[in-house]
Amino acid sequence: MNYQPTPEDKFSFGLWTVGWQGRDPFGDATRPALDPVESVQRLAELGAYGVTFHDDDLIPFGSSEAERESHIKRFRQALDATGLIVPMATTNLFTHPVFKDGGFTANDRDVRRYALRKTLRNIDLAAEIGAKTYVAWGGREGAESGGAKDVRQALDRMKEAFDLLGEYVTEQGYDLRFAIEPKPNEPRGDILLPTVGHALAFIERLERPELYGVNPEVGHEQMAGLNFTHSIAQAIWSGKLFHIDLNGQTGIKYDQDLRFGAGDLRSAFWLVDLLETAGYEGPRHFDFKPPRTEGMDGVWASASGCMRNYLILKERTAAFRADPEVQAALRASRLDELAQPTAGDGLAALLADRGAFEDFDVTEAAERSMAFEYLDQLAMDHLLAARG
Amino acid sequence: MNYQPTPEDKFSFGLWTVGWQGRDPFGDATRPALDPVESVQRLAELGAYGVTFHDDDLIPFGSSEAERESHIKRFRQALDATGLIVPMATTNLFTHPVFKDGGFTANDRDVRRYALRKTLRNIDLAAEIGAKTYVAWGGREGAESGGAKDVRQALDRMKEAFDLLGEYVTEQGYDLRFAIEPKPNEPRGDILLPTVGHALAFIERLERPELYGVNPEVGHEQMAGLNFTHSIAQAIWSGKLFHIDLNGQTGIKYDQDLRFGAGDLRSAFWLVDLLETAGYEGPRHFDFKPPRTEGMDGVWASASGCMRNYLILKERTAAFRADPEVQAALRASRLDELAQPTAGDGLAALLADRGAFEDFDVTEAAERSMAFEYLDQLAMDHLLAARG
Amino acid sequence: MNYQPTPEDKFSFGLWTVGWQGRDPFGDATRPALDPVESVQRLAELGAYGVTFHDDDLIPFGSSEAERESHIKRFRQALDATGLIVPMATTNLFTHPVFKDGGFTANDRDVRRYALRKTLRNIDLAAEIGAKTYVAWGGREGAESGGAKDVRQALDRMKEAFDLLGEYVTEQGYDLRFAIEPKPNEPRGDILLPTVGHALAFIERLERPELYGVNPEVGHEQMAGLNFTHSIAQAIWSGKLFHIDLNGQTGIKYDQDLRFGAGDLRSAFWLVDLLETAGYEGPRHFDFKPPRTEGMDGVWASASGCMRNYLILKERTAAFRADPEVQAALRASRLDELAQPTAGDGLAALLADRGAFEDFDVTEAAERSMAFEYLDQLAMDHLLAARG
Amino acid sequence: MNYQPTPEDKFSFGLWTVGWQGRDPFGDATRPALDPVESVQRLAELGAYGVTFHDDDLIPFGSSEAERESHIKRFRQALDATGLIVPMATTNLFTHPVFKDGGFTANDRDVRRYALRKTLRNIDLAAEIGAKTYVAWGGREGAESGGAKDVRQALDRMKEAFDLLGEYVTEQGYDLRFAIEPKPNEPRGDILLPTVGHALAFIERLERPELYGVNPEVGHEQMAGLNFTHSIAQAIWSGKLFHIDLNGQTGIKYDQDLRFGAGDLRSAFWLVDLLETAGYEGPRHFDFKPPRTEGMDGVWASASGCMRNYLILKERTAAFRADPEVQAALRASRLDELAQPTAGDGLAALLADRGAFEDFDVTEAAERSMAFEYLDQLAMDHLLAARG
Repeated sequence: MNYQPTPEDKFSFGLWTVGWQGRDPFGDATRPALDPVESVQRLAELGAYGVTFHDDDLIPFGSSEAERESHIKRFRQALDATGLIVPMATTNLFTHPVFKDGGFTANDRDVRRYALRKTLRNIDLAAEIGAKTYVAWGGREGAESGGAKDVRQALDRMKEAFDLLGEYVTEQGYDLRFAIEPKPNEPRGDILLPTVGHALAFIERLERPELYGVNPEVGHEQMAGLNFTHSIAQAIWSGKLFHIDLNGQTGIKYDQDLRFGAGDLRSAFWLVDLLETAGYEGPRHFDFKPPRTEGMDGVWASASGCMRNYLILKERTAAFRADPEVQAALRASRLDELAQPTAGDGLAALLADRGAFEDFDVTEAAERSMAFEYLDQLAMDHLLAARG
Repeated sequence: MNYQPTPEDKFSFGLWTVGWQGRDPFGDATRPALDPVESVQRLAELGAYGVTFHDDDLIPFGSSEAERESHIKRFRQALDATGLIVPMATTNLFTHPVFKDGGFTANDRDVRRYALRKTLRNIDLAAEIGAKTYVAWGGREGAESGGAKDVRQALDRMKEAFDLLGEYVTEQGYDLRFAIEPKPNEPRGDILLPTVGHALAFIERLERPELYGVNPEVGHEQMAGLNFTHSIAQAIWSGKLFHIDLNGQTGIKYDQDLRFGAGDLRSAFWLVDLLETAGYEGPRHFDFKPPRTEGMDGVWASASGCMRNYLILKERTAAFRADPEVQAALRASRLDELAQPTAGDGLAALLADRGAFEDFDVTEAAERSMAFEYLDQLAMDHLLAARG
Repeated sequence: MNYQPTPEDKFSFGLWTVGWQGRDPFGDATRPALDPVESVQRLAELGAYGVTFHDDDLIPFGSSEAERESHIKRFRQALDATGLIVPMATTNLFTHPVFKDGGFTANDRDVRRYALRKTLRNIDLAAEIGAKTYVAWGGREGAESGGAKDVRQALDRMKEAFDLLGEYVTEQGYDLRFAIEPKPNEPRGDILLPTVGHALAFIERLERPELYGVNPEVGHEQMAGLNFTHSIAQAIWSGKLFHIDLNGQTGIKYDQDLRFGAGDLRSAFWLVDLLETAGYEGPRHFDFKPPRTEGMDGVWASASGCMRNYLILKERTAAFRADPEVQAALRASRLDELAQPTAGDGLAALLADRGAFEDFDVTEAAERSMAFEYLDQLAMDHLLAARG
Repeated sequence: MNYQPTPEDKFSFGLWTVGWQGRDPFGDATRPALDPVESVQRLAELGAYGVTFHDDDLIPFGSSEAERESHIKRFRQALDATGLIVPMATTNLFTHPVFKDGGFTANDRDVRRYALRKTLRNIDLAAEIGAKTYVAWGGREGAESGGAKDVRQALDRMKEAFDLLGEYVTEQGYDLRFAIEPKPNEPRGDILLPTVGHALAFIERLERPELYGVNPEVGHEQMAGLNFTHSIAQAIWSGKLFHIDLNGQTGIKYDQDLRFGAGDLRSAFWLVDLLETAGYEGPRHFDFKPPRTEGMDGVWASASGCMRNYLILKERTAAFRADPEVQAALRASRLDELAQPTAGDGLAALLADRGAFEDFDVTEAAERSMAFEYLDQLAMDHLLAARG
């Protein structure tokens, strides 16, 4: 197998990923600005099918109307020339100092109003350009100290903002849904809606919950030490996996945005297994940062690596699922029993079943091996192509 | 102030807390078993108002019916003698080896049926004894390896179990609500419903969501590096804070269950501030473990410390909120603006307001100081009684 | 390749690993006690070359002299019959409640004296049975609260203990060196000598530093979020890697002791690469716990998996180092320059070299790509056998 | 008590702390550049005794010789005018892109030579201006991927660099010692010498170990989940605490640099207790960043808060140590026994003492309460001024 990506693989990249200049908390930019048009061309050549953007990635903050139109026009031309699509767009509510205390939940009311207007403006562009998903990462919605934010009121403001956005796309008739992207911390000490769970729960209190889902990012959930695949499974189970950000992270520390596959490789294996078997049809979107040590050669090597690693893992997980020995091992670990209802015959029958309690042989049941280690080693063998 | 607890403070303790014998992964018990009756008496003397239990805390696993009745009777007598109530009860679905792969989501179907029956049995006792909340901590619902659990199917089983329990209490007419207790890991590598957010989201997919809330534990949320007060605020905002487990934890590591106040003291200050101002009326329940180094003297010193620290923090947060300088500082940080709707006049008015976007002076707005450091130092001064 | 271990691979296991009964902080044992003789036989069959033990693994705590001799005799017979050797032994200073506040640094002086005597006794057995390394894991040497331990005095006691042990083996003429095993926490809130670095530094203050090295454990260093391979490299650089504990851990949480390869697989790749290229000649010792869900089938599957994964990684790292494209990539990343002295010509020459500072073109130098992403993807391809 | 700092308190601040403009990985600067002269004046007014700097804080990178002299002259005048001293200086080897792969351990040899020359140049200034300590934080010395750095060779280069610096100050006769500042990660995925322990161990392999100590930073050690006070105690025990960086951090996450006291307050209590009782005579140096939300008012409020919190904690720890009840509690917890040698009578006597082993009553000893919870609550009461 050659692991060569094609548009059918639905790989997409943010303009801000390959375009990251390498500015970090302790250092200046190491790479020049990258023209979005060049990004589109290179990503198309590498095999991507889509490109995504924050408003300010495409149209520098403070551009005039004429400049704005010119930027959009050039970008559209590049899309047309390459066949790349824009499956998703989003708003930058974090770089400019005006958002230092947040966008939708800033204490300053006029900052909140400005944030909403900035978002509404880019939603128009997103809809016009054909995006189906609008991501909202509230990276500045949070606090460093306990008195600085009344969280319940902040959630009221967050709900108000999302309800307004939902009202707007409904009124405009846009075919656009929102995907909330959780993150536990950085750049704020604590960010609101810190995990996939908190975001899923929040959505249920909105006026039009059907319009909102989540956009989980590998590294963000792992920054809280959580099992990313488990959170994705719960998002799918809830009908809410609208988009996904793939990258790598080596444990609980600052947000690393490594290329996909780097970081926790075994977790990436199970993630691809889930995405490929659970019917997820959306983009495989890479939200990563080529390390600051890299020149442009490294940027493209890194972008290619994201796709290559996904395709390798896709091949390996498919082989794992197809292997008769794996299927036997899954049965030996009683995964087939997990698929059966516990009390399909109802509550009364369960209560009446002496075999379920009074006559249940707990000692015998306790002694059964779950045989998970054998199963997990089979997975390891498939991941490493060490079978046979 | 003497910080002497009284029943009006609504402090409660689990039998398993003061009764913990100090068995840990690397060591044997350091303390003898504690008679639940003695626990009731001592906790009453110390000023608690309630006591809680797992079925097996009160009635050792494997007891005969006669033994069971005898244990319950002695316990009831102690409650009557002391005036202590039982605000909450719960099921032990984790100690016996039969639950090694879980209770409600064990791969083995008969283990799941047994777990449900064990729970239903103790719900009867809980209702009979007057508990209003039934806690469910699914500590064994999880996995150490990716193939061992199909998470979506496990969530189906989890939903099935909770729906059955809800059906049962409804049919029986019990005045009992469920509180799900999240935890990210330990004793399983990853536990399902790992955070308050994941549990809140799960509840929304149940048949009778109004019957279910959460029972967050300080240390559990902190084991994921999350801001506990923020999660509690979201739970209250969602109308779902049914119960709470207070203790201490020093960061991301094994589950420490320190006495309340130990661990992150500043976080405890903000937590008490929230509970005391947000109208939470439930028990202040301590779920802690007196360290294994302690004899029984240390057990009671530790239990007393939990209550004392709560009362000290209650005094300090009240003084913080009452201080006119604090109130001025909150206004200087525009907390009053956060309480105002962002777009009270509606979407159309927001869109038409040039002052919100076209004419908004972002530079001026960006330069405003949020003045959070001054506010936070005021909080520190109140916490430390260092004002004036 | 068949990845079949042989004694030449120098794989060893602790009796307490395959013999772990599955008792954890929330659950009782799930497996029966395992006869050390059976462990020796099975490990030999699986391809191990060595077995290690705590005194109490072999001779249950409290055994009479006669029982002790009998246990030792049976064990020796099993060793003779199988050809297994005992490369390392250690003392259990953590299970019995008497050690609840530590062994060498317990506040109680008589507990410290007892701990030293218990250790000295097992050193005699270790020497007699041919062990070359004596491991000291001070899992109970620590505290949960700040006043409970004067750390400087505790380090005095720790030094005193190790100096005495060194005096003893020197006097006795034993061919035995000590390996200190660091761990950051669990079962104590904070453990003294928490990382490889802290242990290496401590050793330099001992009377006979040449007698002491470290026994780092994968999961212990990863519980502090540290790069295990980096710490091993520093230990080797310091001439102090006397022994190693191989296992797996999924990030910062409770001590998981997964089988080797599970957890951070990419880190395991670099670890094997280092051990196999840096001239480490000691045992590849597995200190893991077969998960509590497993029956005895799972125990042996898990033990086999440790060795198999090591051998797979050994094959892959060898291929990585042998690949001409990798060698070119290493040069492109200037690893060859890192091997050259920075100022081989001395301080004066450096100061006189205008090309080093005054005339150095920082802009040009800053623009050079380090090309690490390409190199790392080559490593990934070799790890996954996805080259060509 | 008024907690008003005076020069006798030996508080010092880096120019880069109050001068931080608030640029973070996701946002632009929120504050204007601050003139070092203004910083000196304001810090003096607030009660500091010292100010510290990186070369580039004082003399912008790329300044001409004339500009350089002018910057130094103005700075000296401000020092003279205010009486502030410069106890420490350091080199910026991280901001300019030329250092993207490190300074002393960059793969590129000419970058390493440049880094050494840049450091030597600033050492001259440091000595001239009267600094006694020269700090070295190797924030860029590390890697994001396993092949990018041969750690043993990198440690060779690190040793070579420090040996050269030591040779230089010795030759020049400067009264200047080096303090190495460890950090586990950020801005590199893993940084070499990640903890206080690793740095202490490294120093022992240098040519002139007496010239080198450590400069631990609160938040850096806490980013690895380690007990900062324990690491400081080991540094003091090793005779190596040359300097200290005080700030705050809320657990394992990105480097927060909160003001001292924020973050883990109980840990700060024990740290001040240690510094004030262990004879540490050096500066109390604050290395913090006023949050990006703050205007200049918040910058100075935050700087004042650092000192105020230190003074409050100094008062509270002194009261704790002076309290007769605390002293009794320390004895009850046998801290006095910890101060006694374990085997003052020597190895032979220990071996001959049947009371130490054969006749030792382990059961009785195991039952003694350590009484740590009572002691810790006394500490809590003193911290919170809740005694009496």
